[in-house]
Amino acid sequence: MRQSRLFTKTHKEDPKGELSHNAQLLVRAGYIHKEMAGVYTYLPLGLRVIDKITTIIREEMNAIGGQEVLMTTLQDPASWKKSGRWDDNVVDIWFKTQLKNGSELGIANTHEEALTALLLDHVSSYKDLPVYIYQFQNKFRNELRAKSGIMRTREFIMKDLYSFSRNTEEFQEFYEVCAGAYHKIFQRAGIGHLTYRTYASGGSFSEFSDEFQTLSEAGEDTIYLDEQKQVAVNKEILNDDILKKLSIDKDKLVEKKAIEVGNIFPLGTKFSEAIGLRYTDNDGKEQTPIMGCYGIGLGRLMGTIVEVLSDGKGIVWPESVAPFQFHLIRLGEAAEVKEKCDRFYDTCQKSGFDILYDDREASAGDKLHDADLLGIPVRLVISAKTGEKIEYKKRTEESASLVDITSFIETATKSK
Amino acid sequence: MRQSRLFTKTHKEDPKGELSHNAQLLVRAGYIHKEMAGVYTYLPLGLRVIDKITTIIREEMNAIGGQEVLMTTLQDPASWKKSGRWDDNVVDIWFKTQLKNGSELGIANTHEEALTALLLDHVSSYKDLPVYIYQFQNKFRNELRAKSGIMRTREFIMKDLYSFSRNTEEFQEFYEVCAGAYHKIFQRAGIGHLTYRTYASGGSFSEFSDEFQTLSEAGEDTIYLDEQKQVAVNKEILNDDILKKLSIDKDKLVEKKAIEVGNIFPLGTKFSEAIGLRYTDNDGKEQTPIMGCYGIGLGRLMGTIVEVLSDGKGIVWPESVAPFQFHLIRLGEAAEVKEKCDRFYDTCQKSGFDILYDDREASAGDKLHDADLLGIPVRLVISAKTGEKIEYKKRTEESASLVDITSFIETATKSK
Repeated sequence: MRQSRLFTKTHKEDPKGELSHNAQLLVRAGYIHKEMAGVYTYLPLGLRVIDKITTIIREEMNAIGGQEVLMTTLQDPASWKKSGRWDDNVVDIWFKTQLKNGSELGIANTHEEALTALLLDHVSSYKDLPVYIYQFQNKFRNELRAKSGIMRTREFIMKDLYSFSRNTEEFQEFYEVCAGAYHKIFQRAGIGHLTYRTYASGGSFSEFSDEFQTLSEAGEDTIYLDEQKQVAVNKEILNDDILKKLSIDKDKLVEKKAIEVGNIFPLGTKFSEAIGLRYTDNDGKEQTPIMGCYGIGLGRLMGTIVEVLSDGKGIVWPESVAPFQFHLIRLGEAAEVKEKCDRFYDTCQKSGFDILYDDREASAGDKLHDADLLGIPVRLVISAKTGEKIEYKKRTEESASLVDITSFIETATKSK
Repeated sequence: MRQSRLFTKTHKEDPKGELSHNAQLLVRAGYIHKEMAGVYTYLPLGLRVIDKITTIIREEMNAIGGQEVLMTTLQDPASWKKSGRWDDNVVDIWFKTQLKNGSELGIANTHEEALTALLLDHVSSYKDLPVYIYQFQNKFRNELRAKSGIMRTREFIMKDLYSFSRNTEEFQEFYEVCAGAYHKIFQRAGIGHLTYRTYASGGSFSEFSDEFQTLSEAGEDTIYLDEQKQVAVNKEILNDDILKKLSIDKDKLVEKKAIEVGNIFPLGTKFSEAIGLRYTDNDGKEQTPIMGCYGIGLGRLMGTIVEVLSDGKGIVWPESVAPFQFHLIRLGEAAEVKEKCDRFYDTCQKSGFDILYDDREASAGDKLHDADLLGIPVRLVISAKTGEKIEYKKRTEESASLVDITSFIETATKSK
């Protein structure tokens, strides 16, 4: 894409009133736009990142047997009243609204109730189970404060998967399979080396849930990490009894700040009981499915990547989620430089490379500054000085090198 | 995909209280689930159709220079107060909600205000224009009645594009380019032959807007069509003066019921003026961009396809939006039939065919009935009787023929 055609502009100043590092960088670089506290629009570059994150998660969810649906934001109170979660004193982050006739509707903050009710039409026998159903859907949470940029917002896209199993063993097996898929997702998204499975509270449903926590000073959570064992415990549940139960040695734990990038949660029969979802087992007896839920917030994952991988100059995207793989920078307005750069860009386009072309009439300083801010993995510079070659530099490295155009095209084609 | 693994089931009876033909078929076939009046979940098969429609529209919007973003559902009242559309007496389909501190928020029914306000950060010079920005986003409309299945809902995904041009000529040129793209979209979606550009009211913004109306008895609109000229006029604006102005001969008009599947609308400077979006022209003078908006509801388009192309047996998808291209039906449970069918399915999978495999243990009658209901373009039957061949039948044709497996694979691979 030609950058001169991209409608977003970079900004030199941090946006006013934006305290979080991730949102400061993403707003300045034109990835997102703040509509109000905790509510952000994804601009073209930001949406490309979200789309790449979506693809990674979708592939991993399909690989473990997930079936994708798209549920609704508007929620009929009926199922929520059955589960006891309609009450604002029980769930304190509801947004609610009304139909013309005055009857109340919920704005979805999660989808256990709706999905369980939906399955009444489709599940009746043990042959219909297990099922693993997921979606990428907006969630709305009426947070009192929203101050962590795109990491804690009032409106956000979440991948939420729900499992319905015939018994505890079948549930446990899938729970571990999904935990494995989560590790793969965070690995592919470039933050696997900083992300730890962490014991956390199971709420009213079970003893523990599992969080995936990424080490970062920007995190809202405090965890205690045993690096050798690659396991952590959320401060919220830390006590001697629990450590004993988990066979974790208190002395090996190090306190860390971390961001919860994912969460998997045993639900037992809480929702299937409440909604009345039953199945007949192979002895003809009625049984209640065991459920689990598995969430990843897409904006939070994107914000976390920015928090933990950026440097003093700007964002540093891993290849897997970068809006483009190559950032071609033309330095100079001379006709022969323009012509050479346009020709190279055309070749890249024809080769199917994922490339952003800075063809703007701007100073070399501004263009190189913007390239660092945008954080595309490979910068390619063509100027009067580069002759028949291009200057190649990785965003993660300091030094650039001149490379032959033909061999660049060949190598890049092979690694596609 | 193996149908035995698909969590949705078909239903023999029409859903209770569902009066519209499109929703009756789509619910029975397991494409959608009704959450409440005017609010539907897309199940795996339905989401596949929505995804294919999305791809068609995205390709055509990118082809005319559209840049994709994702705006938000939660709306700050500030911009809406500037445009005068916050008032429930002006816009009578608002859903509204509140933050914890009691301040009101809107649930977006459209995005002119938000996008125009966003562009204050990115547009200042004539060099920044024109821009064409679009999204696929949920819209929420508090309709008094919702009775047309997925064609008029309280929550729906819309492709909405907004154009910002420097002057009327530049606007008009894009308006016609976008009208052309809309014709292509409806052609590709299989309803082009029934869809007519229709003069409609321009509201308070301009004299006319243009609707794309698909002929159907299920339509809520009445249009007057001149088939020879391939143009129509919405009944809402029909009078002798208007016909004279449009050089349309009253005697050639035929009254038809139709569904509005798309709408393009000149907005003039209504929103740019109200929000204060300005640019400096090449003489250094401040100017106000001319805007237009261009909408297609995805569910409505899907519902329209079902309304106009289905037959007495069920849905008839055009290839372009079908959830799968091939529906393989295994008739019989004998080991050699199963083995032959599994082997054929594996070959199809390896060849990358888009295929649903009915491997369920069910009667031949039920399976063939479901195949007609689901409406996948090509049905392939393997049974004890088909020997070394497969029975091939198009959903749009009555007769089936036995074809050689190898030649089927070859032909299908070529036409991919």
